Amino acid sequence: MPSHDSRVMSAALRSKIMSAEDAAALVKHGENVGMSGFTGSGYPKEIPLALARHIEAAHGRGEPFRIGVWTGASTAPELDGALAKVDGIELRLPYQSDPVTRERINAGSMDYIDIHLSHVAQFVWFGFLGHLDVAVVEVAAILPDGSLVPTTSVGNNKTWLDRADRIILEVNSWHNPALQGMHDIYYGTQLPPYRQPIPIVTPGDRIGDTTFRCDPNKVIAVVETHAPDRNNTFTPPDATSQAIAGHILEFLGHEVRRGRLPPELLPLQSGVGNVANAVMAGLESGPFEQLTAYTEVLQDGMLDLIRSGKMTFASATALSFSAEKAELFNRDTAMHKNRVVLRPQEISNHPEVIRRLGVISMNGMIEADIYGNVNSTHIRGSRIMNGIGGSGDFARNAYLSIFMTPSTAKNGTLSSIVPMATHVDHTEHDVQILVTEQGLADLRGLAPRQRAKVIIENTAHPTFKPVLQDYFDRARRGSTGQHTPHLLDEALRAIHPVS
Amino acid sequence: MPSHDSRVMSAALRSKIMSAEDAAALVKHGENVGMSGFTGSGYPKEIPLALARHIEAAHGRGEPFRIGVWTGASTAPELDGALAKVDGIELRLPYQSDPVTRERINAGSMDYIDIHLSHVAQFVWFGFLGHLDVAVVEVAAILPDGSLVPTTSVGNNKTWLDRADRIILEVNSWHNPALQGMHDIYYGTQLPPYRQPIPIVTPGDRIGDTTFRCDPNKVIAVVETHAPDRNNTFTPPDATSQAIAGHILEFLGHEVRRGRLPPELLPLQSGVGNVANAVMAGLESGPFEQLTAYTEVLQDGMLDLIRSGKMTFASATALSFSAEKAELFNRDTAMHKNRVVLRPQEISNHPEVIRRLGVISMNGMIEADIYGNVNSTHIRGSRIMNGIGGSGDFARNAYLSIFMTPSTAKNGTLSSIVPMATHVDHTEHDVQILVTEQGLADLRGLAPRQRAKVIIENTAHPTFKPVLQDYFDRARRGSTGQHTPHLLDEALRAIHPVS
Repeated sequence: MPSHDSRVMSAALRSKIMSAEDAAALVKHGENVGMSGFTGSGYPKEIPLALARHIEAAHGRGEPFRIGVWTGASTAPELDGALAKVDGIELRLPYQSDPVTRERINAGSMDYIDIHLSHVAQFVWFGFLGHLDVAVVEVAAILPDGSLVPTTSVGNNKTWLDRADRIILEVNSWHNPALQGMHDIYYGTQLPPYRQPIPIVTPGDRIGDTTFRCDPNKVIAVVETHAPDRNNTFTPPDATSQAIAGHILEFLGHEVRRGRLPPELLPLQSGVGNVANAVMAGLESGPFEQLTAYTEVLQDGMLDLIRSGKMTFASATALSFSAEKAELFNRDTAMHKNRVVLRPQEISNHPEVIRRLGVISMNGMIEADIYGNVNSTHIRGSRIMNGIGGSGDFARNAYLSIFMTPSTAKNGTLSSIVPMATHVDHTEHDVQILVTEQGLADLRGLAPRQRAKVIIENTAHPTFKPVLQDYFDRARRGSTGQHTPHLLDEALRAIHPVS
Repeated sequence: MPSHDSRVMSAALRSKIMSAEDAAALVKHGENVGMSGFTGSGYPKEIPLALARHIEAAHGRGEPFRIGVWTGASTAPELDGALAKVDGIELRLPYQSDPVTRERINAGSMDYIDIHLSHVAQFVWFGFLGHLDVAVVEVAAILPDGSLVPTTSVGNNKTWLDRADRIILEVNSWHNPALQGMHDIYYGTQLPPYRQPIPIVTPGDRIGDTTFRCDPNKVIAVVETHAPDRNNTFTPPDATSQAIAGHILEFLGHEVRRGRLPPELLPLQSGVGNVANAVMAGLESGPFEQLTAYTEVLQDGMLDLIRSGKMTFASATALSFSAEKAELFNRDTAMHKNRVVLRPQEISNHPEVIRRLGVISMNGMIEADIYGNVNSTHIRGSRIMNGIGGSGDFARNAYLSIFMTPSTAKNGTLSSIVPMATHVDHTEHDVQILVTEQGLADLRGLAPRQRAKVIIENTAHPTFKPVLQDYFDRARRGSTGQHTPHLLDEALRAIHPVS
């Protein structure tokens, strides 16, 4: 029996405590498993590893064992990495960033469906993705009434718990119990035609429960763990990301002066990664006060803004910190929870709320073409990098839709600005601002040929400008149509720097 | 002085009645003009023609005269056609379908910005598209208090009237005065951060005024006209469009049987054109009752559903009828107005409402690629056809997102299913169902390679199947990544039929 200070406070569920090994054995070949986890936070720490061992053993016996893995977004080596390594994943959705998983997908041995993050929960409710057999969800505690305290990400956990036939819980005592009360789990969703407005009008509005409801009869196992989330390492802002951040801050200041943004801006959304993190760091020393965020992920830079008082409130679906900031947040949870709310990703990324709030959306990209089409997911049209994540939810519905990247990749040998994107995730209709360390292209109110001019001029690296300009000039002469001039014979060819 | 039965019932505005010629003379070179008009309905009938004459005369004198033309969507030969013919348009937005305009755009002599139709009004309010100088709006009557009765389209008229410095009204007595009361003009929009939920939960909800508010001091001219809207001709459903409709109806029936749709379906959105119209005609003889629509445009087929009682309510922003149906609707306006509401296009196409209602979205396309990316706008990547219209507003937020087209074009010499779309308006993330006369591809829950299989098998024309299959097979061997296998050297090449 667990000690009296166990996080498993429900007597009914206490009887279901078992080892990760035993719990993992309850998952069968061919099942779809909804796991917690979003940008390396709040994923189950032990069961996926144990499951990978079961799968490896089954494969050793010549038995088939592969499952469908559904999550919030990316997880960690202990989940995606471990299961991919033993070839245990048949189908993965909706987002991943694990190197082993990526390699399997690009080798054609794992299927992957890249989905707008706001779409996932509703597709499951609609019955579009098939049956969900098992939920494996990390929680911070099981309360006496059987309700569950979420941890560092909410993601799709509500939907997994509601829809799965069987539930396995990991109760992770590493998390500060003061997390209880930080979350806002909305139980007002319905299937059409019974849906009602989602009553969020400011980032801080609370519209739901602080815990997950959970049918105790569906819980087949409870596993106690004690482990921190994956360590997300951020590189310190370098000259390139600082330059990108500088251009964005200058632009935001300009918009305030023109009366197109209030002095406290509008709620910020900041994508995942180093450049996004650098923009947040830039805001720390910038002129804007009373900032808010309505975003997907709260990273180090945004936590600094909250701790310094520059940002008054942040709504997200996940925390994604470096080890140092994770410790800090865990220590100071009680202090932070009045300024942070974590919601289900269908709410954090909901088009209705994003459009209503007028979010300023800032996302990274792989490449943009000279007409403003953005590729966020594929290398050379065929190799998946990570996935679209929430960038489409935000960009299409944002007040300002900003995409950013260093102007070159691979030590300057590849241009991030290309004649024609080899894959399109964000169309010309959804992209307003492009930023590289070279500068910023404001595409609002510009027709395609006008866009090409400012994109080449403001954002391309000098070594690639001549070849891009040459392509555009020749397309102006040789294209069959002059609305979006292109030379299809060479539009997708890799371009090379002019030195 | 007008007779006592004039539609201009405001004494203040009666004094501003003048000829179209005189009114048009109040528009100056370089101005941005917001005109009424949406899919050939409710556009000003006389002023654009008179303006075209002024422009032609100015050009004859060697004077520059070009304006920016902003509308709801497409208009008519008397507006786009006339102004384009005299080279009077510098910039056109957000949608057009006029042959003369299209030719100018593709020749590179007119700039065109293709915008999601739900974005236009808010971009103007945000100040992203520049200053609006003049509004030229058709109305059915000016009431004694100066408010305006809309006609057969609402489009962006509320925004034009609110934002323009000067207003010119065309009062068209062709329209049945019983139109008054059919419209729902929402005045609850705000700029962020002050936006509130849009309180529509069923297609028939009325949340606004029946008329436009209008500052009489901004009205500089009133012109009286008497003319019907453009005659939209629909070809009778042919074997191809009937086959497409048949596949869709069969699919919807299947979804009802699987419990994924209620028997009365969910609100329908149907794009513009003959195929969309044929689907509506198919519903007439189909098994579904108590249908509703939350759509952009009400065409002949949908009017038939309303008249037969199959459809109980339709919400749209415009009527777009053949001459015969237009006469019928005009005659029976009083009867129809309890079953039809016309709203501003920012509301008819609002992501918030479309997602909430769970709309079944059916739109035409130019081509789809084997992975499900859809091109709605460009021929061979460079020549604009019409524009994206509202297809993106609906597809991204729909319960079911369906795109349809005949499997071939140009007498069977071109395939509508191609290796890689030469322009992408709807990404793989937004396309669930593809339909041609050959069959239907249900892409829900499928990874890219799985999609390619069903798209080629179910939707490609038999004469193009072998070449598409061959491309896919070779890409499976030769692509640098197997997530979305492609051979970039030939991905954009036109494919040829195998006989």
